Amino acid sequence: MRVGYLQFGPVFGEKQANRDRVAGFLSDVKADLIVLPEFFASGYVFESREELMELAEEDGGESFAFLNDLSRRMGAAIVGSIAERVGDDCYNTCVLSSGGDIKARYRKVHLFDREKELFTPGDLPFDVYDLRGVKVGMMVCFDWVFPEAMRALALKGAQIVCHPSNLVLPFCPRAMITRCIENGVYAITTNRVGTEARAGIELTFIGMSQVIGPRGEVLMRANEVEEDLRIIDINPALADDKMITQRNHLIDDRRPEFYP
Amino acid sequence: MRVGYLQFGPVFGEKQANRDRVAGFLSDVKADLIVLPEFFASGYVFESREELMELAEEDGGESFAFLNDLSRRMGAAIVGSIAERVGDDCYNTCVLSSGGDIKARYRKVHLFDREKELFTPGDLPFDVYDLRGVKVGMMVCFDWVFPEAMRALALKGAQIVCHPSNLVLPFCPRAMITRCIENGVYAITTNRVGTEARAGIELTFIGMSQVIGPRGEVLMRANEVEEDLRIIDINPALADDKMITQRNHLIDDRRPEFYP
Repeated sequence: MRVGYLQFGPVFGEKQANRDRVAGFLSDVKADLIVLPEFFASGYVFESREELMELAEEDGGESFAFLNDLSRRMGAAIVGSIAERVGDDCYNTCVLSSGGDIKARYRKVHLFDREKELFTPGDLPFDVYDLRGVKVGMMVCFDWVFPEAMRALALKGAQIVCHPSNLVLPFCPRAMITRCIENGVYAITTNRVGTEARAGIELTFIGMSQVIGPRGEVLMRANEVEEDLRIIDINPALADDKMITQRNHLIDDRRPEFYP
Repeated sequence: MRVGYLQFGPVFGEKQANRDRVAGFLSDVKADLIVLPEFFASGYVFESREELMELAEEDGGESFAFLNDLSRRMGAAIVGSIAERVGDDCYNTCVLSSGGDIKARYRKVHLFDREKELFTPGDLPFDVYDLRGVKVGMMVCFDWVFPEAMRALALKGAQIVCHPSNLVLPFCPRAMITRCIENGVYAITTNRVGTEARAGIELTFIGMSQVIGPRGEVLMRANEVEEDLRIIDINPALADDKMITQRNHLIDDRRPEFYP
């Protein structure tokens, strides 16, 4: 299975141009699953709730349609997050598009910093989608800090966790190694690069998009500043082997009666 | 608060000699809390259940008494694990001795590899002991791989997690950085060094004892092979600051309704 990340630097508010760049990057790519950064179309530092609602889209909006068009043309599943407007709410919604349709949707459960003032916390469970026999889960950026997020996906059988991100703290790339080891799953973290200086805030995103294997192997990793599209062949079945020793199964050895 | 690890290489079965070495290492040390390796007295690779039961001790046995004597003489809390015999069961029991008494006890909940054939899984909850106003939790070695273990301690208010270990896999020292970040706590992992070749098995322990801070700082770390006693001054109150950003609290931001 050929999976990869597209690390790039969206320009704030330039949704059409950002989508065009994604399409350009991916035009000749042969892959089965590509993960885009969080908010690949809109950018991240919204000045205000009003600006967010203007850039946000309802289900079926142009960025949703773009992913569907892309997934159909490429014959690949594409994962990315979109600011989704639902009535008066706005969610940070991560979708998996495959064969021209949105097949799975997850709304960011753990909002980061200023997102708390802009977005509604996710209302959908961590769940797993069967992509031609491969179980794919989604989480978004700051969800990494809560081990319960990837654990929920692993307990539902996830083999690959897609993790669109806009990381600014330094911790996540290494922490995801632990997440993969403790759950025995692959993770594709796609981060963006560049700086957004808006609303009196300056955020520099740390890049370091990566694919981690089920024993914590760093299979590939981008650098901190450059745009980077990379694809790798992985064997999702390796994520079914939960035996970290001859006698220790990462899931079956859990003892929930002692857990909070 | 002065805390530290004593990384050393116990000799299998030489309980008195190993205790004497611990006492020697610590004779002139001024500290408040010292963590010893897992099975500091007995060593690790038991040939058989019979050998284990012979080396194991009932509550109050000589290794328990040794820790109590040491904690009273030093005026420090000492944490270490002992093979504890309870009727026909044997537990991997971690104790905290302070002022000449065993104040807290934890029995390893997640048994590693061959331990499953030798020990009874722990039957006590992850819990926190108030050491002169500082909340101290205990977990043992392989518990690191289950994020629920340290999470349980953090939810009970642990500021410092003591983690006696006999690590042979390479993952733990880095994973404990993630554990400390995700919970905002200190961790003292004390591993042993050396090799035990017994029962047709050869295990080399990886050393790398460490003290990690609540933002994942590696405050000190031993190397892979040498015996090493080190003490550092820490401020346990820093573990009460769970704000990883201005708006994100590591504990209060949890959303258990979405967790397994």
